[in-house]
Amino acid sequence: MNLSGGIIPPLVTPLLDQEKLDEAGLERLIEHVIAGGVHGLFALGSTGEGPSLSRRLRGEVVRSVSRWAAGRLPVLVGIGDTSFAESVGLARASAEAGASAVVVTPPYYLTYSQEELLRYIERLASESPLPVFLYNIPHLTKVNFTAGTVSRCVDIENVAGFKDSSFDLIYLAEVIRLTRRREGFQVYCGPEELLLPAMLMGAAGGVNGGSNYCPALFTRLYEAIRRHHYEDAACLQERVQRIAKALYSVGDAASSYTRGMKAALAHLGICPDLPAWPLLPFAPAEKAEFAARFGEVRELWS
Amino acid sequence: MNLSGGIIPPLVTPLLDQEKLDEAGLERLIEHVIAGGVHGLFALGSTGEGPSLSRRLRGEVVRSVSRWAAGRLPVLVGIGDTSFAESVGLARASAEAGASAVVVTPPYYLTYSQEELLRYIERLASESPLPVFLYNIPHLTKVNFTAGTVSRCVDIENVAGFKDSSFDLIYLAEVIRLTRRREGFQVYCGPEELLLPAMLMGAAGGVNGGSNYCPALFTRLYEAIRRHHYEDAACLQERVQRIAKALYSVGDAASSYTRGMKAALAHLGICPDLPAWPLLPFAPAEKAEFAARFGEVRELWS
Amino acid sequence: MNLSGGIIPPLVTPLLDQEKLDEAGLERLIEHVIAGGVHGLFALGSTGEGPSLSRRLRGEVVRSVSRWAAGRLPVLVGIGDTSFAESVGLARASAEAGASAVVVTPPYYLTYSQEELLRYIERLASESPLPVFLYNIPHLTKVNFTAGTVSRCVDIENVAGFKDSSFDLIYLAEVIRLTRRREGFQVYCGPEELLLPAMLMGAAGGVNGGSNYCPALFTRLYEAIRRHHYEDAACLQERVQRIAKALYSVGDAASSYTRGMKAALAHLGICPDLPAWPLLPFAPAEKAEFAARFGEVRELWS
Amino acid sequence: MNLSGGIIPPLVTPLLDQEKLDEAGLERLIEHVIAGGVHGLFALGSTGEGPSLSRRLRGEVVRSVSRWAAGRLPVLVGIGDTSFAESVGLARASAEAGASAVVVTPPYYLTYSQEELLRYIERLASESPLPVFLYNIPHLTKVNFTAGTVSRCVDIENVAGFKDSSFDLIYLAEVIRLTRRREGFQVYCGPEELLLPAMLMGAAGGVNGGSNYCPALFTRLYEAIRRHHYEDAACLQERVQRIAKALYSVGDAASSYTRGMKAALAHLGICPDLPAWPLLPFAPAEKAEFAARFGEVRELWS
Repeated sequence: MNLSGGIIPPLVTPLLDQEKLDEAGLERLIEHVIAGGVHGLFALGSTGEGPSLSRRLRGEVVRSVSRWAAGRLPVLVGIGDTSFAESVGLARASAEAGASAVVVTPPYYLTYSQEELLRYIERLASESPLPVFLYNIPHLTKVNFTAGTVSRCVDIENVAGFKDSSFDLIYLAEVIRLTRRREGFQVYCGPEELLLPAMLMGAAGGVNGGSNYCPALFTRLYEAIRRHHYEDAACLQERVQRIAKALYSVGDAASSYTRGMKAALAHLGICPDLPAWPLLPFAPAEKAEFAARFGEVRELWS
Repeated sequence: MNLSGGIIPPLVTPLLDQEKLDEAGLERLIEHVIAGGVHGLFALGSTGEGPSLSRRLRGEVVRSVSRWAAGRLPVLVGIGDTSFAESVGLARASAEAGASAVVVTPPYYLTYSQEELLRYIERLASESPLPVFLYNIPHLTKVNFTAGTVSRCVDIENVAGFKDSSFDLIYLAEVIRLTRRREGFQVYCGPEELLLPAMLMGAAGGVNGGSNYCPALFTRLYEAIRRHHYEDAACLQERVQRIAKALYSVGDAASSYTRGMKAALAHLGICPDLPAWPLLPFAPAEKAEFAARFGEVRELWS
Repeated sequence: MNLSGGIIPPLVTPLLDQEKLDEAGLERLIEHVIAGGVHGLFALGSTGEGPSLSRRLRGEVVRSVSRWAAGRLPVLVGIGDTSFAESVGLARASAEAGASAVVVTPPYYLTYSQEELLRYIERLASESPLPVFLYNIPHLTKVNFTAGTVSRCVDIENVAGFKDSSFDLIYLAEVIRLTRRREGFQVYCGPEELLLPAMLMGAAGGVNGGSNYCPALFTRLYEAIRRHHYEDAACLQERVQRIAKALYSVGDAASSYTRGMKAALAHLGICPDLPAWPLLPFAPAEKAEFAARFGEVRELWS
Repeated sequence: MNLSGGIIPPLVTPLLDQEKLDEAGLERLIEHVIAGGVHGLFALGSTGEGPSLSRRLRGEVVRSVSRWAAGRLPVLVGIGDTSFAESVGLARASAEAGASAVVVTPPYYLTYSQEELLRYIERLASESPLPVFLYNIPHLTKVNFTAGTVSRCVDIENVAGFKDSSFDLIYLAEVIRLTRRREGFQVYCGPEELLLPAMLMGAAGGVNGGSNYCPALFTRLYEAIRRHHYEDAACLQERVQRIAKALYSVGDAASSYTRGMKAALAHLGICPDLPAWPLLPFAPAEKAEFAARFGEVRELWS
């Protein structure tokens, strides 16, 4: 089950309760994004609130996503953790569940030098039964993989690709230039507002939160770029930006992205709007504000 | 087993291997700090590399520290995690092992509003069998407890105190002013270089990394302040600063504190210098540099 | 003399001495960029080290640039200052010298609210005899114009456009959306590595440092984008990135951009490599490193 | 007219209009602080909005402060600017006006390496007719003088002291240690909330904004520390903190300090509350809020 670019939704984790996965919601979500034409699934990323879930629940999510995907498309699993042993454990559980690859951030409590990160990836790649994607998201992990470090990781056998959520296109362009020598090495863009410029610079696709609720808009954008219909792409990209601006800025900025993401799926009847603790669904006034905005931008992805 | 101020070493976690606790080293460390007159023990903090250890190993550390402490002084346990369920689990394990209190940071991958943090503490306090200390360390967790939030937490029954590692004395002074109305609420200073000013402003003591290797210097400083011998205290505080400056700045800044801490204990024959993965002991050139510095400052705590 | 998009070099200020403008160098520079097909000139920007020059010398630069431009293309003048009166004074001097517009950053020592910035622009626009472009460069001024503030400035009569050097394309795209209702309002992209995505999102052109030494590469890139030859544009954009990466990273990062810019012009025989105090030309080892890099990338703009 | 420690108010600049100094207000202010027992005057600092004033007005302020001081106590003048030539010009004007010393920040638009800052200070010290104090205030200038750079500056003949507004006591303590070898080198603490710990660590005094309106509270605090009455000092320091917290946090945080400072002086009848453009006096609702807070804390300095 190989990945060769495209749109890979970082799947939201539907919850019935803090320790209870919403299996039916997850199935609906997966059918929704597959119907939208996506090219892979990414479980337990930042959008999936992976680190907020207990280890037990993370294992359950991996098994359920793999089961519902049913071999129709590749499944990637976020295994980032502060403890190396826990990350390796989750990589093994992912392999057992039939996933295709794992995705790892730098460990995110203490801070590390680039040498330490390189060593970390080397060892993780050697212990992981699945190919490893690096995941750069410095606003959450504090440390980042420098372009030079990514370039060195390209020579590690089991490293397969890179996802960047740094919002820094100059960095991303440099990573793309430096990793081009390894055939098949894939670079994905996290921020959905930057998919077009990222792909124009050589990215293979996007791991974009918005593709949870409007996957077809993202796959249309992806196809427009692939076919070099850049003006169409610019229009679609602008729609993505307007939707993102509207839906991810209700309530306190610290958690507005995650809460907005779940609220959008609830509006579509896919799953409850319950985020992982200590986040809570929007309060009534926020709900009303969100509903109004949702109504305004809803037509942008019809 | 009550805590009423003083020096509480954030215990280093001696390791024989990534998944193997050095029990003998831990016993030596605990005897060393008790001989130095400390007033409590804090396991699994940032200095103890708590988040870098697997959940299994964290449980082992808690049990071992409690066993070696043997009721001679209070034991606090760091339960900070990105998952609420894991934190609660560790709080329960701490209670079973006989610990006195738990210490919790904000969850540290996603970011949270102050309301969310408050709710988090309320719920944690209600589920924890042990009293809860808040731990503010924004350079590692990204979000901080504002002074206003700490003040509101003071009204939560099972919240017992606060440790601040923000390096911001104006903030710390404000927290002290705002929490004074709750009798017995204790505020501790994390950065060892700031113990004197923090106590002068009302802090109850320090949770200072350096008290792992030179506990007696810290208890002397603590006593000098308590007895209002401020000039003596200023001299002792300056020694602490010189030692810290020398020992925590070898090699890459991102991990020089943690690696220096373990190297200092290795120089004293207490435990190996092996940090938790992906950190490694100093390379030969760093080791030589560290040894030279250690020699220079060693007399400052004799 | 109207500006309607294109490449506008932020002119380097050639110096013979700290207080002595290199008139011949300035003439050569202006002829060089005009021969390269640029669409305007921007004097006294960040690249031109405007704030580092004495007020007397700033006046001289304005007059000389206008004289050498000789009405062949629009001249913009950076009037950013910490003092409102000084900015207005320079705006008047610019008008007298025959410049076409002025460009203003937020005042950059103290910090200001968005209301204060709005009021500042309103008053500046009313006192400036020339149209005003806003210049957003938060890594140097600390405060930024939010997209909402720029949108409100669009309703001020004498405000003509906006230059963004924030490196934040999501922000830039939002500014473009919010300012589109005012016909003729022009948005320019500062970072040369981002010209293609910025124009794809609607920017009118670039104010790019590299167009000082290789103006024709930038005007080719600009034309390729305008004609929708996006693949060609992506190749040219990558060249720009490789050149920028090579030439702006010799020596200490704090000043490597400015020193590299002048060194590049010295390599072309346009002007001395002397920057404004306290910067100095590269030391011998840096010079050698720069020369090697210059040699490597020189062919990219032939 | 030598300075040997103590409280040096960074004088507010009373304005009748943007370009019109309030001479009578300035005289009242100077008499007020002298009556409060201060040990020197500092004109054109950050609190004095120096960089916001036109060069002409800065010259006027220097002459007027010197005239009203009338040789009764030393006058220091802030000469920080983005242009070296302007700073030197102001240093000469300060000498002509009879000032005692000048105070210089790093230039604050472009950024500089430590080598460049060192060279800057060397050359400024050689061209300044008056002794030079370094002024570290990285939240406004972006770059800071590292402790190592300050230590090297100590060997420059005309450098006389250092003012730190970094809010970083560990840094300040290190600077004090490293500069102790030069007899008479004086280190002052900018943030008024940290005067006690700074002096306990060896600072010679404070350049504290609050000493504009309640100078006697600051001189009492200073004397209590000098006489080793540390408990008294801690009480006075807490009052300073409460006053600062109340008076510097009305309205938008970006400018609340400067606007609060002028409002406090207006409440005392010393000068109008007009700040330098683009700041404006508090709006009616802010004025009411400020008045209430002023009433609450007013008794703390009686």
